[in-house]
Amino acid sequence: MSDERFEETLYPGWRQVFAVDRWLHRERTEHQDLAMFESPVFGRVLALDGVVQITEGDEYMYQEMMVHVPIVGHGAARRVLIVGGGDGGCLREALKHPDVAPTLVEIDPSVVTFSKTWLPAIGKAALEDPRSRIVIADGVDFMKTSAETFDVIIIDSTDPHGPGEVLFTQDFYAACHARLSERGILVTQNGVPFTQGQEVTDSWHRLRGAGFADVTFYVVPVPSYVGGFMALGWASKDPANRGFDAGEARRRLEGRTLDTRYWTPEIQTACFALPRYVQDLLT
Amino acid sequence: MSDERFEETLYPGWRQVFAVDRWLHRERTEHQDLAMFESPVFGRVLALDGVVQITEGDEYMYQEMMVHVPIVGHGAARRVLIVGGGDGGCLREALKHPDVAPTLVEIDPSVVTFSKTWLPAIGKAALEDPRSRIVIADGVDFMKTSAETFDVIIIDSTDPHGPGEVLFTQDFYAACHARLSERGILVTQNGVPFTQGQEVTDSWHRLRGAGFADVTFYVVPVPSYVGGFMALGWASKDPANRGFDAGEARRRLEGRTLDTRYWTPEIQTACFALPRYVQDLLT
Repeated sequence: MSDERFEETLYPGWRQVFAVDRWLHRERTEHQDLAMFESPVFGRVLALDGVVQITEGDEYMYQEMMVHVPIVGHGAARRVLIVGGGDGGCLREALKHPDVAPTLVEIDPSVVTFSKTWLPAIGKAALEDPRSRIVIADGVDFMKTSAETFDVIIIDSTDPHGPGEVLFTQDFYAACHARLSERGILVTQNGVPFTQGQEVTDSWHRLRGAGFADVTFYVVPVPSYVGGFMALGWASKDPANRGFDAGEARRRLEGRTLDTRYWTPEIQTACFALPRYVQDLLT
Repeated sequence: MSDERFEETLYPGWRQVFAVDRWLHRERTEHQDLAMFESPVFGRVLALDGVVQITEGDEYMYQEMMVHVPIVGHGAARRVLIVGGGDGGCLREALKHPDVAPTLVEIDPSVVTFSKTWLPAIGKAALEDPRSRIVIADGVDFMKTSAETFDVIIIDSTDPHGPGEVLFTQDFYAACHARLSERGILVTQNGVPFTQGQEVTDSWHRLRGAGFADVTFYVVPVPSYVGGFMALGWASKDPANRGFDAGEARRRLEGRTLDTRYWTPEIQTACFALPRYVQDLLT
């Protein structure tokens, strides 16, 4: 491996190391340490405070699953709200559904600017698309003060430490519930159960406490979020939003083919099959 | 992270590093470099020539999926052959099915001895179980000279480089086909599609060329085999050995509960749903 390397410091006992072909940006402010580089396997990688946030090479797995599973699950989603996600990746996937009007609420305008500059392949076009509505606001404030309703709410947050922590509270989930339409669905980024199991257990209790009829998790293994499956939270007002088969998923697309690299109609169903070690966290 | 660490050298541009709590064994022979240590997240880890082979912390995911998917898929498997797998992990899972008589064919007796000494939690009891038949022989020779037939053949091999390479040839797969009973199933270890996609494409062609009626892959994300999903090869004489639902998987267990940490009746079906990027390798 080359001498230039980036070692993630997320877990004390197990780490991933990237060869760095080229440093693109490195900035240590009083708030955070930002590292941005080109790497051989993953293309551009962004890390904050030593933790990988996104890579060009595998971000599609996460974004597609965060977005298509609830939109296809709902079946008639029009108003889709993304909280966080200033890189524009979730927005890009939402725009693949012609009937969807997506709103992005990002607290930090510099995330949007930074992403357009350094990760344009991910979401620049989506962030500048006339169908996209970009709101710079605190997600918690937006949720508590907005009078709008949404069919799908996607919480594309960082991990539940520091500034992102408020997006993992029962209080916030209840505010999301209040902003969802009758058959609405909330999905959340929920960490890697193999190494961050307590996050899954905590979210399970909080989502159930927030009044949803159907709470579970679905899974996708994102290579740069090491540890096997990542869990995405699923809280739905209508249990019928999942459990249908691949044929029904196809019918809901009405002949359109979603241009995806991870999601398929079969994955729409299969992603809800949880390994026993994940099921055991729902207790 | 502690100063004592083990860095896997499998990929030039992306690596995993384990903190080492304690070195258990380190041996450099003319044939290989063997490293065995205790680590915080994974317990005992065995690496050969810098590549992780097995860890106590996540081996169950691999072993359960290598074994229960074909046995439940077959529905009436009695004679199960494991080629490789001298650690005894696949054997342990096969023994969870009371009607199964498992045979293990391992080329290197020192693997069995070593595993019993250093990784007893994985397969020592299974390797010493009176129901287990252990044959020390070359898997290729065994397959070509044996007159026995098996309902399920499991190729628990290393990667397709060096000594393990012969277990990835069309010739070997055809020999397996000849040793399978009428509705028999062959499963194989097939690497990580995200980083080792060519292996999946190669195996797909070779398994199809070996005369099986139904060839595909199924997936399981094993944390220490970094890169998201691992692909397991599925080559079956009867297409009906997959495609049934979780209810049917339960019926086949006839009221028994498999004591698993990964596999579930729902996973039996869901694991065949391939992400688009894996489907795209079958070409």
